[in-house]
Amino acid sequence: MNYSMVLYVVGWILNFEAAFMLPSCLVACIYQEKSGLAFVAAMVVALVVGIPLTIRKPKSREFYTREGFTSVALGWIVLSIVGAIPFVLSGSIPNMVRALFESVSGFTTTGSSILTDVEVVPRCVLFWRSFTHWIGGMGVLVFIMAVMPLIGGKNINLMRAESPGPSVTKMTSRIKNTAKILYQIYLVMTVIEILLLLIGKMPLFDALTISFGTAGTGGFGIKNDSIASYSPYLQYVVTIFMILFGVNFNFYFLLLLKKPIEALKSEEVRWYFGIIAASILVIFVYVRSIYPTAEEAFRHSAFQVGSIITTTGFATTDFNLWAQVPRTILVMLMFIGACAGSTGGGIKVSRILILGKTIKKELNQLVHPTGIKKLQMNGRLISHEVLRAANVYMMVYLLIFACSVLIVAVDNFDLVTNFTAVAATLNNVGPGLELAGPTGNFSQFSNRSLLVMIFDMLAGRLELFPLLLLFHPIAWRKF
Amino acid sequence: MNYSMVLYVVGWILNFEAAFMLPSCLVACIYQEKSGLAFVAAMVVALVVGIPLTIRKPKSREFYTREGFTSVALGWIVLSIVGAIPFVLSGSIPNMVRALFESVSGFTTTGSSILTDVEVVPRCVLFWRSFTHWIGGMGVLVFIMAVMPLIGGKNINLMRAESPGPSVTKMTSRIKNTAKILYQIYLVMTVIEILLLLIGKMPLFDALTISFGTAGTGGFGIKNDSIASYSPYLQYVVTIFMILFGVNFNFYFLLLLKKPIEALKSEEVRWYFGIIAASILVIFVYVRSIYPTAEEAFRHSAFQVGSIITTTGFATTDFNLWAQVPRTILVMLMFIGACAGSTGGGIKVSRILILGKTIKKELNQLVHPTGIKKLQMNGRLISHEVLRAANVYMMVYLLIFACSVLIVAVDNFDLVTNFTAVAATLNNVGPGLELAGPTGNFSQFSNRSLLVMIFDMLAGRLELFPLLLLFHPIAWRKF
Repeated sequence: MNYSMVLYVVGWILNFEAAFMLPSCLVACIYQEKSGLAFVAAMVVALVVGIPLTIRKPKSREFYTREGFTSVALGWIVLSIVGAIPFVLSGSIPNMVRALFESVSGFTTTGSSILTDVEVVPRCVLFWRSFTHWIGGMGVLVFIMAVMPLIGGKNINLMRAESPGPSVTKMTSRIKNTAKILYQIYLVMTVIEILLLLIGKMPLFDALTISFGTAGTGGFGIKNDSIASYSPYLQYVVTIFMILFGVNFNFYFLLLLKKPIEALKSEEVRWYFGIIAASILVIFVYVRSIYPTAEEAFRHSAFQVGSIITTTGFATTDFNLWAQVPRTILVMLMFIGACAGSTGGGIKVSRILILGKTIKKELNQLVHPTGIKKLQMNGRLISHEVLRAANVYMMVYLLIFACSVLIVAVDNFDLVTNFTAVAATLNNVGPGLELAGPTGNFSQFSNRSLLVMIFDMLAGRLELFPLLLLFHPIAWRKF
Repeated sequence: MNYSMVLYVVGWILNFEAAFMLPSCLVACIYQEKSGLAFVAAMVVALVVGIPLTIRKPKSREFYTREGFTSVALGWIVLSIVGAIPFVLSGSIPNMVRALFESVSGFTTTGSSILTDVEVVPRCVLFWRSFTHWIGGMGVLVFIMAVMPLIGGKNINLMRAESPGPSVTKMTSRIKNTAKILYQIYLVMTVIEILLLLIGKMPLFDALTISFGTAGTGGFGIKNDSIASYSPYLQYVVTIFMILFGVNFNFYFLLLLKKPIEALKSEEVRWYFGIIAASILVIFVYVRSIYPTAEEAFRHSAFQVGSIITTTGFATTDFNLWAQVPRTILVMLMFIGACAGSTGGGIKVSRILILGKTIKKELNQLVHPTGIKKLQMNGRLISHEVLRAANVYMMVYLLIFACSVLIVAVDNFDLVTNFTAVAATLNNVGPGLELAGPTGNFSQFSNRSLLVMIFDMLAGRLELFPLLLLFHPIAWRKF
């Protein structure tokens, strides 16, 4: 293990985090909030640790998957810890574990909160909370790589560890350019959403924070009723953008290259929209009668489906009160998640597709034991490695899920609360059902359960392996 | 597809089913119950269809996996339909779908019941209900093969489809001998249990039916409180035998061959006992305070763990009232299930082991991308096919599980009821939690939900693929 390179990467993460806190300081100045000092203190901590680690580039340039996974896992943990400092120092969340939960929930774009009343929290802290979604959505390391070379040609090993989905497609031959294009698309889409929200007469502060939450598919609200009190127009804008941010960014890249036919060839994107349309339809039929107008029933169905499948977690209505079929569909959407290469969480549509294709192939093979048929996706062969990785991913996923539910059960809440709380954190969704539902929050859980969910959120965001490897002795052996 | 061979096998299943109904007729004579006539009628139906199909052996001897899977799936469906006739004609369960549910639940050794009061049901019907567990446990086709050659050298394709577990080990070079040895061990163990129960002063009828339910890991009770009203001695006997029938029968075969060291080498059996011990310990700690003595707490913990992991489903206490940790453990045990090659259901300990080993290997491979390490089990290499099959099994399993929960949700019961009812039927356990818990039953579900669970029980017992193949057009194509 090349420790010096790992520490170098972690150091840069801290330096950039200090910079990311500047907008919150600005917000504190505008609203004349004393809590702004908490950000200054956190910036000092970040730089005191970060600068010495990055003063000179390590000599040994060795940087493989192992180093990539370790840097990303360690980097995200450090990022979250430093990101929790403002919550503690501002007095908004005095308990360290709970502050860390909120910070991890922000960066991993989960959006589960332990705050019972967000409307009393200072504006600068609310801004930081939502801004962590925006940074975490596309990835802090991807951001750094877009700005500076960091570790040269080996950047792909970092990007692979931080980007969601079964395989990272290099959009361009150079990683730096890929990172740049990703962030450019991300930024432009965010700005368009902000403008559309401002047109709908949303206050600037709300438009900024809600757009950050949408873009990162995070879901931290700045009001206690999430998005429920905004106008139907604003709710539709958020719905559409949540769904757009759940699309594989490769799709937009192909559109930019003026290759719309190739973009539409993506099976993942087509299935993604198909699942959304089918879910909205079924839920609409079920909830039609409980809302005064068909428009309202449709709006709430579409909003909740978009919010849950993209793992954003905003809410416009208390879906915990819906009938069992809509509730069950929402729980399933939590697991399916968004597209790979988007800012959303969950298992990812492409993985589900790969597994579905495997099942079909295996059934055929039972009948024709000798006929060997290769699996295809988007007209290309799926490599044996991608297939195996998707299978193993599912197994590890189930294992982490089962262990988490068991430990959280010690708190002795009902099974649906435990089950959906773990589902909501491991898939980076945000709200679950029952006590963890959209009108509830995570403050009732013990610190033990919150620590488990902190692990789950990080494991979910980093796609399990980087975090698991961190706890595996093999990662720390020298050879 | 060799249709004539498939029909020939199905015909023999019907002939044997008629013979299996004879003991119930005898019970009807002893207790002078008119319901005995229902069995005579069912036997006539079975033979009228069965005999013409088996008058002469088909000319074409072609019999591959496809034919094996189709025969087993079709055979089990026909077996269940004819097995449901006595329930309907005796008036115990007038509704056809509900009678079929009870029959499938019997043969698949699930033990979920739609009867709200079993104590008013005639004795001969109760006997048949429990006897179906005994037949279904080791398999009706395995029984036929133990008695007659059936389809000659191709029997392995039938056995593979009917026997539980990721791979069928041929204990002896000839399938017929393997089937015979399996049934001999099965019969001897059942007789020992009956004797031990009789020694504990259990009435003969109770001893027979409860032993059938234990041996097949079925779980139909003949009292409304399952096993709760029997003496502690009897409860311990049932506990021990439930656990013993969940062991891979290969273990007993090796003991018979006086190879105890080789028998103990089985990783699956060691893990199986390890999981049982750990679960009993944790549950004991949790439920200690709600029972008057430590002995009683231990007895109930051990009974429920043995009952659920082996997927038997007997109960001595209402575990639905336990705290969340014991409840969650029981739900997990439902999924883990017993050993492969036993009469128990669930995913099977060996499959979980294979998947666990895959995860470990994959983590190592991340660190050493070039080092190729083969997986071992019981000191032997696991073949690529077994690994892949275990992975695909899990995927299909999850898919069926998710679809079933969604359809059952239409009944609008709470999520825990739906989730555990599907878990209890797909894993062939019997009781779930909440409304489907040990004091509840399945009569509240709609016929639509019951049909879904009928499919789940059959899919669980036949390990998914035979039943899925039956619904796949490819199985019916001629080539």
